[in-house]
Amino acid sequence: MALTIRKLDSRTPDFLAALATVLAFEADDDAAVDDAVAGILADVKTRGDAAVLEYTRRFDRLDNTGEPGMAALELPQSALEVALAGLDPVRRTALETAANRVRLYHERQKAECGVHGWQYTEADGTVLGQKVTPLDRVGIYVPGGKAAYPSSVLMNAIPASVAGVGEIVMVVPTPDGVRNDLVLAAARLGGVHRVFTIGGAQAVGALAYGTQTVPPVDKIVGPGNAYVACAKRRVFGTVGIDMIAGPSEILVICDGTTDPDWVAMDLFSQAEHDELAQSILLCPDDAYIARVEASLNTLLDAMPRRDTIRASLEGRGALVKVRDMPEACEIANQIAPEHLEISAAAPQEWADRIRHAGAIFLGRFSSESIGDYCAGPNHVLPTSRTARFSSPLGVYDFIKRSSLIQVSEGGAVTLGRIAAELAYGEGLQAHARSAELRIEGLRSK
Amino acid sequence: MALTIRKLDSRTPDFLAALATVLAFEADDDAAVDDAVAGILADVKTRGDAAVLEYTRRFDRLDNTGEPGMAALELPQSALEVALAGLDPVRRTALETAANRVRLYHERQKAECGVHGWQYTEADGTVLGQKVTPLDRVGIYVPGGKAAYPSSVLMNAIPASVAGVGEIVMVVPTPDGVRNDLVLAAARLGGVHRVFTIGGAQAVGALAYGTQTVPPVDKIVGPGNAYVACAKRRVFGTVGIDMIAGPSEILVICDGTTDPDWVAMDLFSQAEHDELAQSILLCPDDAYIARVEASLNTLLDAMPRRDTIRASLEGRGALVKVRDMPEACEIANQIAPEHLEISAAAPQEWADRIRHAGAIFLGRFSSESIGDYCAGPNHVLPTSRTARFSSPLGVYDFIKRSSLIQVSEGGAVTLGRIAAELAYGEGLQAHARSAELRIEGLRSK
Repeated sequence: MALTIRKLDSRTPDFLAALATVLAFEADDDAAVDDAVAGILADVKTRGDAAVLEYTRRFDRLDNTGEPGMAALELPQSALEVALAGLDPVRRTALETAANRVRLYHERQKAECGVHGWQYTEADGTVLGQKVTPLDRVGIYVPGGKAAYPSSVLMNAIPASVAGVGEIVMVVPTPDGVRNDLVLAAARLGGVHRVFTIGGAQAVGALAYGTQTVPPVDKIVGPGNAYVACAKRRVFGTVGIDMIAGPSEILVICDGTTDPDWVAMDLFSQAEHDELAQSILLCPDDAYIARVEASLNTLLDAMPRRDTIRASLEGRGALVKVRDMPEACEIANQIAPEHLEISAAAPQEWADRIRHAGAIFLGRFSSESIGDYCAGPNHVLPTSRTARFSSPLGVYDFIKRSSLIQVSEGGAVTLGRIAAELAYGEGLQAHARSAELRIEGLRSK
Repeated sequence: MALTIRKLDSRTPDFLAALATVLAFEADDDAAVDDAVAGILADVKTRGDAAVLEYTRRFDRLDNTGEPGMAALELPQSALEVALAGLDPVRRTALETAANRVRLYHERQKAECGVHGWQYTEADGTVLGQKVTPLDRVGIYVPGGKAAYPSSVLMNAIPASVAGVGEIVMVVPTPDGVRNDLVLAAARLGGVHRVFTIGGAQAVGALAYGTQTVPPVDKIVGPGNAYVACAKRRVFGTVGIDMIAGPSEILVICDGTTDPDWVAMDLFSQAEHDELAQSILLCPDDAYIARVEASLNTLLDAMPRRDTIRASLEGRGALVKVRDMPEACEIANQIAPEHLEISAAAPQEWADRIRHAGAIFLGRFSSESIGDYCAGPNHVLPTSRTARFSSPLGVYDFIKRSSLIQVSEGGAVTLGRIAAELAYGEGLQAHARSAELRIEGLRSK
């Protein structure tokens, strides 16, 4: 049965409204999930290990409520090494190459994002600056089961490792005791320090509050199901969190000169993630759009995940005829997609017009899948238009800054007068007096 | 009546528990506030200007529900200029000097935080990098009434202005039509482009969703009351937000050689903000702590805000005797204070040991109040131990990054093989085929 994929034309008067309908996505706020998570978090905060062990018995069918308890749920580094050593050699090499490339990119990023701090001295000797410090301890949530992606382990752990985080603690549920060797091998390559085989809201709670065995972390990153996302929202403030990801998205801008099979497969590669994933093509060439549609129909049947792909493309996909490439870039900025492919002969010209996108893939050889696994940049990217104000996960997410202010005696007088004047203006007299006491003290010296 | 301020000694066995009690602070989750805010936001989202006008009539007693409607609630740039021109000259100079210094510091920060983007080319011609873009449009919330702080306007607007944000939209309620000229003057100096005299959850909703008159922004920053904080939490995701601030905090580490009146006044300067504000002193010298306590009692009566100061110091303050300065630094890292003063003869030595603090004030002349107004660094700082994972508001909060990936023909083959191998390992065949199609295409050339 032919795919029924939505077609839009930017020249029609209702185009913007139709586009808004395609893009509309509201995350479900499920009150039942929220209540369950609130209960689990409160219990983990109060009872620590005992609560985590009980939930792990209930949800993952692993009973360690007796001795040795939580210790049985921590994997030693040797388990990660064994997992890595046991991989098929081709896959192991691929994973190691990916890890090395991701590390290289993030080291470059570290060098470029001001992590070394800075300061300057003013004429009167006052010193101002900023100190940069990696986070002490970070938690990485890794889903278990079918959504266990070793590439995500690399993408979350490596920027933390490059940033210099003191301790990286990974949690990954192993329902019925089933471990994923690729995930454990990736943890080894990513520089993870400790691994607990726990998951769900109970794992998020353990990381946020700490238990007798699990150390409390300063930030929790990584994808998870609705319970995990809800738990992360709830512990935000006690710890930092990364963005809560929405469904994955790809937007392809094509000038009509790329093999349509390539573009079709790129649209599939997003659609196969999830029925809610979104794949959109923008192209100024009607005939080319028809060729891509034909490719979609020809290629679909061979896809093992064709049911998910069909549901995604029919429910949330779109083929959009635009006036020209500049208009395509404008629409891309409206959409602010997670992934943007500029599949065109002179991609840089169009990339210069893009202000909002998580990752920009330039040229027809830059398939998103290369970026997902091994180009080097992070694959944790802002979704649901949040690329308007947020960034790929990076080294900068695992450092933080402290202002440095060292006022000289001269500065205490000149700056003190200004501070006192403005403090009186705001009715904060102790602020003013605090500055004035220094001026008076220096005057009487 | 003498101040009853809590005294702790780090040598006592229950010290850590006692310190935890002092630090404990749970923001109220007020269900009534949350319900009210949810209703207002939904109404503003649906009805736009009409809803904002009605809430402004109800809460601020300003009726513009007839013609010209919302237009009457926008202030022209000329109104800001008039406010600036009308200031007392001494105060105007102080405000201008503060604005210039804050701008200078943030320009330095911009130069140091990698806002120019970067890229590198690999041996096979593959180009990787990161593009940095300022946000298109930002909203700044400014409280009205007694908590209207012009310094906060500067601190929120200037980093956005320095980052190159396209449009800075300020909202500030003017209950009963009363405007604060210092706030409007600060908006002019801070580079604010548009000002609407609206406030509360309705202003947050207008900025997040846009109305017929108020343009939708990409991020909302700035302090506000419980309704504003709740509204910001709720629109997070649709727009970015800054941290939700808890009560303000100062931690003073003193080696016992600073005039005790200075330290006492610094503790006051935080306590005068709010009964929930927290002022703590760490010192290894018992006798000096007693002198500071005597100063607190001597100086309190002359403080116009003495009632707030007393409530804050008695409810949440502490004077802590520590073993030595190194231990003081360790405890400071535990507390992760918003403001840390190192009031000591050789402050740099101790500052080097500090990992977690919003701003570090070095030396006895660096009163926090100078940092609050005019030193240059931002006074919007992480509270409630969040300095463990977050940073002062800065230029980096008004830019975001996009990854750049341009794969060469050679890269499409070598990287494509790795991506395909890992994609098959994760069961994502369309990802694998997307990479393989390029390899096959190049092979058949």
